Parts: sequence; C-alpha cells; structure tokens
Amino acid sequence: MYEGIVQDLIDELGRLPGVGPKSAQRIAFHLLQADPADVRRLADVLMEVKDKVKFCSICFNVSQSEQCRICQDPRRDPSVLCVVEEYKDVVAIERTREFRGRYHVLGGAISPIDGIGPEQLHIRELMVRLADGAVTEVILATDPNLEGEATATYLTRMLKPLGLRVTRLASGLPVGGDLEYADEVTLGRAFAGRRSADD
Amino acid sequence: MYEGIVQDLIDELGRLPGVGPKSAQRIAFHLLQADPADVRRLADVLMEVKDKVKFCSICFNVSQSEQCRICQDPRRDPSVLCVVEEYKDVVAIERTREFRGRYHVLGGAISPIDGIGPEQLHIRELMVRLADGAVTEVILATDPNLEGEATATYLTRMLKPLGLRVTRLASGLPVGGDLEYADEVTLGRAFAGRRSADD
Repeated sequence: MYEGIVQDLIDELGRLPGVGPKSAQRIAFHLLQADPADVRRLADVLMEVKDKVKFCSICFNVSQSEQCRICQDPRRDPSVLCVVEEYKDVVAIERTREFRGRYHVLGGAISPIDGIGPEQLHIRELMVRLADGAVTEVILATDPNLEGEATATYLTRMLKPLGLRVTRLASGLPVGGDLEYADEVTLGRAFAGRRSADD
Repeated sequence: MYEGIVQDLIDELGRLPGVGPKSAQRIAFHLLQADPADVRRLADVLMEVKDKVKFCSICFNVSQSEQCRICQDPRRDPSVLCVVEEYKDVVAIERTREFRGRYHVLGGAISPIDGIGPEQLHIRELMVRLADGAVTEVILATDPNLEGEATATYLTRMLKPLGLRVTRLASGLPVGGDLEYADEVTLGRAFAGRRSADD
C-alpha cells in the first residue's frame, strides 16, 4: 500500500517487541520526516551494537571484550556468584551497590510454554564454573514469577549436591510501598519471612 | 549504567515517538539477542529510506522519484485536488478507491501550540498550483480535529476568492459503528448533515 521502501521500514519496525502495526507506521512516518543525521545515527548504532557487543565467555554478561568488566575486576569477590536471568538484571543489581561478588547470566528462565528448558540456558556452563570449588555461595536471583521460581527450584536441586550455600533473594513488601496495596502472595511471603525487629 | 554502546542504542530508540525508556530498553535487549541479519536488515532499511524516499515536487507526497506516481498518472483527474495533512492520509484515501483526482500534502496542520503556522505548511505551493485555473474543485480532507478544522477554515478563506468549488469531507456516524457509542459532536454533525432517505 505504501511506497515499497516505506512499507519495508514499517514491516521491519513491526517486528520489534511491543511495536504493533500502528506504532510501526507512526515511527516510520516520524523517521521519514526526521533529520537524516538522526536516522543515520540510529542505523549506525544498530550496526555497531551487533559488531561490538559480545557476551562474556565466563558469565555471559554483555561485554565489549572477551570477558566482561565484572569478571575482569580483581576487587570482585570470586567466592559469591549471583545467578540471574538476563543482562538487565545484572544492571539492576549493580545499581544497588549491595553486591560485590560475580554473576552468571542464564540467558532466560525455564519456560516449557516457550520451549525453553534447562538445556537452552547457560546451566551447563554454570556447573563447569562451580567445579573448582572457588565459589562457596550461589545466590539465585531469578525473577519472582512462575518461570523464575521454576528455574530457581531446578538450580537448587542441581546445586545442593555440590555442598555450596545456595540462597534466594528475600521476598517481602517493596520499600516505599503501601501495605494495603501489596498482593496477598507478597504479603504472605512478608509474614513468613519476618525478622526480629532488633535487626 | 549499561555498556556504552547498549546505552547509546537505548537512548536512540527512546527518541522514537511512542517509545518510552522501558520500551526502548526492551527493544534494545531484543536486538542484542536477535539474529545479526535481522538487525542489519533494519539498519539497512533505515539508511535506504532516507536515501531513496523523496517528496514529490508537485504535491509533496512521498515518492521515490522527482514526481510521485499519482502526479505522473495521466488517468488521474487534474481538475479535482484533495488537500490532506500527511502522506498517510493519501494512503488511507487511496485505499477507498473512491477518489480519482490528485493530492496536495500540506505536511501537517496549523497548530499554534506546536509552533506550526500556515507558513510551515505547503500552502504557498498550493496557491501556486491553483493559479492556472486547471483545478475546479478543492476537497479539504484535513483531520476532523481541532488542528484539522483550523487548517480547513484557514484554507477556505484563502481559496474562496479564487472562485473554486471548495468542499469538506462529510462528518457523521462511522459505518459499522453503534449509534449509542457515537460521541455527541459526531452525532450532532450526523443530524445536521442528514440527507433524504431516497439518495
């Protein structure tokens, strides 16, 4: 319906997650009228990202070199390993400045509906990393949803025989939230995980 | 917070209309994990669109040559000109197959809030096109909203002295819609514009 190349652009944009046909059209028309330099910058960064961004050969974190900055940093505690689903989880945890260990990025979570089983995740590489005994605690920081819980349960079963300390992030009320708005599962977990008020 | 180039990509994506920071992040992570060929295709089409897509020198429609297909088509009636805001309006009208005349794309609508006055639109070029008297009817097909109405009112004032027939698209109930869900302005227009049931 549109001039060939414009339709191609709409089609390509429509393949992005969360971009429906209407949004794709809106973005395409915006780009048609945009400054060519702006569009070129977007195109360049797209090419660059695939050329430059690699995954760390140790932890599968996003990296611009063979090993990511965290794996290369000698100040990071090699005895504590935090297992996360995605790169964005690493960024979220780094933002807290609470964690000084290292990471292992699974590349997703177990989700039979999406055809993702343990063999699609970097679990084998995790087991290899743990083989030398340098890691003494593994923190399972998967998402607090169905897939994340399933993944954590699976990993717990795999890791327990290694004699490591295996921990999960605490569940409970979000800081700054209102108790009355917490869903019942979260509130239930907050009760179950209650601590002495002296802490 | 993210590796430089990943953050650059998120920033560039976040500049697109309707793409907030969260969506930009989601799209960026999708692209990081996507097949490099897919990302390259998107980048290529972005570059191509700016290289190849021009605007018709006569009607300002999107075109891959100096003049658009419609302006070049000798079967299109040169005596009827449909004035629209954007290229996408041309496509929408072409889809109806009801209109066999030619177009004039204004490039937007008068909107003082956005700093768009008549001089930012292709109105001067419209007046030049009408000067030779070949066009006998101008259909004002601007959007049925505040800016579109303002633009149509302005154009009507400009065009009336030329002795042309100046028409507007009919307002009324959308076909296939429910009367009870029509807003009061639309329903009011539908009453005002009622026709003999014999038509």
